[in-house]
Amino acid sequence: MRGNKFGKLFSFVTFGESHGEALGVVIDGVTAGLDFNLEDLQIELDRRAPGRVAGTTNRKEADSAEVLSGVFQNKTLGTPIAVIVRNTNQRSKDYDKLKSEYRPGHADETTQGKYGFRDHRGGGRSSGRETLARVIAGYFASLMIPKIEVRAYISKMGPFSATVDDLLNTKDISPYNYPLVEKNTEIKKYLLKLKADGESVGGRISILIKGTPIGLGEPAFDKLKADFAKSLLSIGACVSFSFGLGEEMANLMGSEVSSKRENFGGIEGGISNGEDIFMTTTFKPTSTIGEKAKEGRHDPCILPRAVPVVEAMVKCVLADHFLRQRAYGDGGINE
Amino acid sequence: MRGNKFGKLFSFVTFGESHGEALGVVIDGVTAGLDFNLEDLQIELDRRAPGRVAGTTNRKEADSAEVLSGVFQNKTLGTPIAVIVRNTNQRSKDYDKLKSEYRPGHADETTQGKYGFRDHRGGGRSSGRETLARVIAGYFASLMIPKIEVRAYISKMGPFSATVDDLLNTKDISPYNYPLVEKNTEIKKYLLKLKADGESVGGRISILIKGTPIGLGEPAFDKLKADFAKSLLSIGACVSFSFGLGEEMANLMGSEVSSKRENFGGIEGGISNGEDIFMTTTFKPTSTIGEKAKEGRHDPCILPRAVPVVEAMVKCVLADHFLRQRAYGDGGINE
Amino acid sequence: MRGNKFGKLFSFVTFGESHGEALGVVIDGVTAGLDFNLEDLQIELDRRAPGRVAGTTNRKEADSAEVLSGVFQNKTLGTPIAVIVRNTNQRSKDYDKLKSEYRPGHADETTQGKYGFRDHRGGGRSSGRETLARVIAGYFASLMIPKIEVRAYISKMGPFSATVDDLLNTKDISPYNYPLVEKNTEIKKYLLKLKADGESVGGRISILIKGTPIGLGEPAFDKLKADFAKSLLSIGACVSFSFGLGEEMANLMGSEVSSKRENFGGIEGGISNGEDIFMTTTFKPTSTIGEKAKEGRHDPCILPRAVPVVEAMVKCVLADHFLRQRAYGDGGINE
Amino acid sequence: MRGNKFGKLFSFVTFGESHGEALGVVIDGVTAGLDFNLEDLQIELDRRAPGRVAGTTNRKEADSAEVLSGVFQNKTLGTPIAVIVRNTNQRSKDYDKLKSEYRPGHADETTQGKYGFRDHRGGGRSSGRETLARVIAGYFASLMIPKIEVRAYISKMGPFSATVDDLLNTKDISPYNYPLVEKNTEIKKYLLKLKADGESVGGRISILIKGTPIGLGEPAFDKLKADFAKSLLSIGACVSFSFGLGEEMANLMGSEVSSKRENFGGIEGGISNGEDIFMTTTFKPTSTIGEKAKEGRHDPCILPRAVPVVEAMVKCVLADHFLRQRAYGDGGINE
Repeated sequence: MRGNKFGKLFSFVTFGESHGEALGVVIDGVTAGLDFNLEDLQIELDRRAPGRVAGTTNRKEADSAEVLSGVFQNKTLGTPIAVIVRNTNQRSKDYDKLKSEYRPGHADETTQGKYGFRDHRGGGRSSGRETLARVIAGYFASLMIPKIEVRAYISKMGPFSATVDDLLNTKDISPYNYPLVEKNTEIKKYLLKLKADGESVGGRISILIKGTPIGLGEPAFDKLKADFAKSLLSIGACVSFSFGLGEEMANLMGSEVSSKRENFGGIEGGISNGEDIFMTTTFKPTSTIGEKAKEGRHDPCILPRAVPVVEAMVKCVLADHFLRQRAYGDGGINE
Repeated sequence: MRGNKFGKLFSFVTFGESHGEALGVVIDGVTAGLDFNLEDLQIELDRRAPGRVAGTTNRKEADSAEVLSGVFQNKTLGTPIAVIVRNTNQRSKDYDKLKSEYRPGHADETTQGKYGFRDHRGGGRSSGRETLARVIAGYFASLMIPKIEVRAYISKMGPFSATVDDLLNTKDISPYNYPLVEKNTEIKKYLLKLKADGESVGGRISILIKGTPIGLGEPAFDKLKADFAKSLLSIGACVSFSFGLGEEMANLMGSEVSSKRENFGGIEGGISNGEDIFMTTTFKPTSTIGEKAKEGRHDPCILPRAVPVVEAMVKCVLADHFLRQRAYGDGGINE
Repeated sequence: MRGNKFGKLFSFVTFGESHGEALGVVIDGVTAGLDFNLEDLQIELDRRAPGRVAGTTNRKEADSAEVLSGVFQNKTLGTPIAVIVRNTNQRSKDYDKLKSEYRPGHADETTQGKYGFRDHRGGGRSSGRETLARVIAGYFASLMIPKIEVRAYISKMGPFSATVDDLLNTKDISPYNYPLVEKNTEIKKYLLKLKADGESVGGRISILIKGTPIGLGEPAFDKLKADFAKSLLSIGACVSFSFGLGEEMANLMGSEVSSKRENFGGIEGGISNGEDIFMTTTFKPTSTIGEKAKEGRHDPCILPRAVPVVEAMVKCVLADHFLRQRAYGDGGINE
Repeated sequence: MRGNKFGKLFSFVTFGESHGEALGVVIDGVTAGLDFNLEDLQIELDRRAPGRVAGTTNRKEADSAEVLSGVFQNKTLGTPIAVIVRNTNQRSKDYDKLKSEYRPGHADETTQGKYGFRDHRGGGRSSGRETLARVIAGYFASLMIPKIEVRAYISKMGPFSATVDDLLNTKDISPYNYPLVEKNTEIKKYLLKLKADGESVGGRISILIKGTPIGLGEPAFDKLKADFAKSLLSIGACVSFSFGLGEEMANLMGSEVSSKRENFGGIEGGISNGEDIFMTTTFKPTSTIGEKAKEGRHDPCILPRAVPVVEAMVKCVLADHFLRQRAYGDGGINE
């Protein structure tokens, strides 16, 4: 009830404060007998890790995953999978003055108001660091849905923008997760400049999903689009969600929309129709600006590191609905 | 697990197909001793009802609410509240040809794929008619949060657009739920023209919430914004959600955003900060177009009728988080 | 959260007060395409109905089931199934004096303390009448698990007792649900005498389940035995639960128990092992005694009518775990 | 859905296999600002720990709790509390032959059948070792309900038996958790003899709860007795549950039962009535017998170590219902 759990049949609970002992996740609902590979998991974590990309935070934590349960001889057991990441580089003293200071756009004041008590060192429970637990969950989700491909990318960041076609033309968009990789040097300069200026910037992350079977999503509240929206808006900096033609739908006539099936974004009546699913989100600029942003270990733009988190959340939704659909079957019990 | 339930402490299950015996809802988590007024409930239902506004569907069903349980001597009992609305005007034969015909943008094909069997008469379970059950739930939610004011309005519909200031300047925006009520005659003409042309149009519905206490929403997955997003994207025609500055955040620098607290849209770190909450959604044009739209009982634009549904879903989220916050308290057990 | 919902993948919500408009249930998680037969459902309801057996309550309500949703052309749709039963015979005035009178062993005082407000006419929400909704749910559960046979029977009632072998020797144990049907005349006399004396009696109901596949139940909290225990203790008059050798286990040595696999009652490690499952419950005597019991419409012994309720709850647990096991599969995704 | 979570408003997820890296628990729903004391937690864990009592298993693991999150400056944060216990003493090779051998009364065969793959070293996920996670949860539950006293004790073990009055006469019943502590030497001899014989024995654990407020429990499925039953039957060796007069109710007349309110065991209509709550469970003899039991690290009787687990589960149920009742209030919103 305190909202630290996500999902139903494929579900996970995250825990940990940014400056506590460790962050972690317990994932429940992974089927038994799937091949686990610690290196693959670590690769996903590293995609999200701070300090790897020039221009992003220089907080260089190992973010090393330790699997405590649910895996035996590199296979999933079907039992809950607990994975933790130790906090090794918390410089809590940096945060001492935050005890009685509330940063705008952060959870500081609302957390104090909500609980009457808080861990004032960094974001505490509301830190973006919590998202590493989601990336871990996303890795295990991906084991369940090997035929579905989920790709997120930066579709807009400051002066840079890209289309889904740009994505389709580029296999590897790391490390910035911007499809026009020939711009990577420019992006680096741009981010370093922002950092030097104590400035930050927002942008957009879009998602393309290929290979979704027909029938995922439920007709009433757990429409696939609704669960995607929740999953993405549950990321701290995310401020908007749309799918298919999205906001553009407000400017269109029914005849224009119905002319092409892909305008429905792969979801009809809340249920996947087997076509590509396309979604877009907006992320606000990092709230930390000014002198603090220059000194600190803060990202001038969260987008590059948010991309693997976005992918993880989308995979978790898909894995959950995959199991739900399998439970009930298409036509049911008599098959 | 089949997604017919919404909410946690304040929760409800909806049931019913558009051409079945009845639609209804069972609401659980309403506290005991609240004053119930059937007329007020009916007023909310009537706001959503078809056939009341020129230019919207001419399907004139009574949509009369019958309370089966949970209310005694006009007070809530704290037990589950069941309310049903009989389907009195289903002309099923209109739909016979739909048995083997899948309408684009509808759930017809995905439902068949998902279940292997469906009620082909109208939208079945995926019909917009299901939303009357949500309006009923929203009425009971509103009893729980008397100090919070939730107002939704059409901020864009075809050539018409309105701002939140327009809303604040107008007390009663019925029947079109467009704040510039002096345009109502124009709107009527516009909608009748659409209908005559067998055309439809999308638009935007925005929401202003006043009086939210500090502390609603949870720091991880059940952020207030995430639950709002889910609640609204669970409405059939809704294709986008944003809060605060929304999509505009993609174009802003951190310094611009942090200059005014209201830019955060009343939610920081996923938790309400006591300020006004502002959200916007996009609705796609009604999928039924062409000759079918002219003859049938179809809305050329769903927006006027969607406004009470939007308000209901938002109220349900607020009532749920209100109870959640009350359960845990601010500082807890030792108060 | 108010405990009106039971089950996870096969779940249902019950509603209604004994003297309100109607009682009912919304069942979610029934797969699509199953054959529905209203007569079969009514037969189950009639087994539980009051006034059919001499010696039980003379409250002769029709308890006629009306299906509002989820069934189309006598097949389940996979959507929520709502069924209601109108209260047609409530003589509310009988209960007027109960407004300020709390009956021992009933929920009267605890309900008042819990909610601060209650429907004082009869048991309200806590009435045994609520169990008709469970019988309806049990009927739909049985459609999901056609290969599993669930038989409950009275193993002790006053001076009468019976064994599981007695059950196996008798195909039809109606109407008293006591396997030694040759005693039915005696039972009738016994119950009439109790009634005349304003007395009541408790007893035991045992359950034999045949045909459970291997693998139902989860290793930690949702052990099959734990879910059975909860399901049965959720029946008002039920005061004990045991499975396999049950209480006798307290008197046995490990070597005695391990000598025969059937001593484990069909459940090992919380998971069904494919053997017969055997369980026993105790029901307390009806709380209404004395003059009130003589006049009123009260059962001197609830056991005969409780048997179909017990069966229904057990079936619901089995259907739920059946779906859960199907979701995750035995070995999983790669099959 | 895989049953590794218990509770609703106060909830926890356990994880870990007996021979994996660690066992642990994530507890959600603890209010903020409660005083945490690691020593108190460790005392509870030590009560359950193996190897402390002569005659019980000689597996001497430290079972040392490490708190990873949710606590700051010795106060609860209101965020999820993760606690782990490393497995330091697993002698996995002892178990190698179990790979293809299924022990009767254990989960070996059912686990293999359920998942198609398992950790064959010891009980894996089904090991009694999982219950240490419950004891940790119980410690945090107890912080939420400081006014409620929960005491479990051995009421029968082999030739030894004790009454609730014996319990009331003895403040400290450690280490055997048998109230007649003057028999401790005899018990020690008895258990050592069992061990030497490769034999095991079952028994009964009873529970007395004092100080429960009126109003805990819900009228339909989440009756307090139903949730207690589930919580206790979810313990591996538990095979029966009863409350109040329990099984004796089958032999009583209504007039006898209604003569004393305490006969209802502190729960009427599923809701606590403020009186003492009394419950009894049966535990089967440990399944490991014969030569294996002599050599191995197996308990000849699980009862002494099960007592703190029983107390923990009961406290978790109470804390959960305490929060549920606080959410809805007694009469509600208008207070």
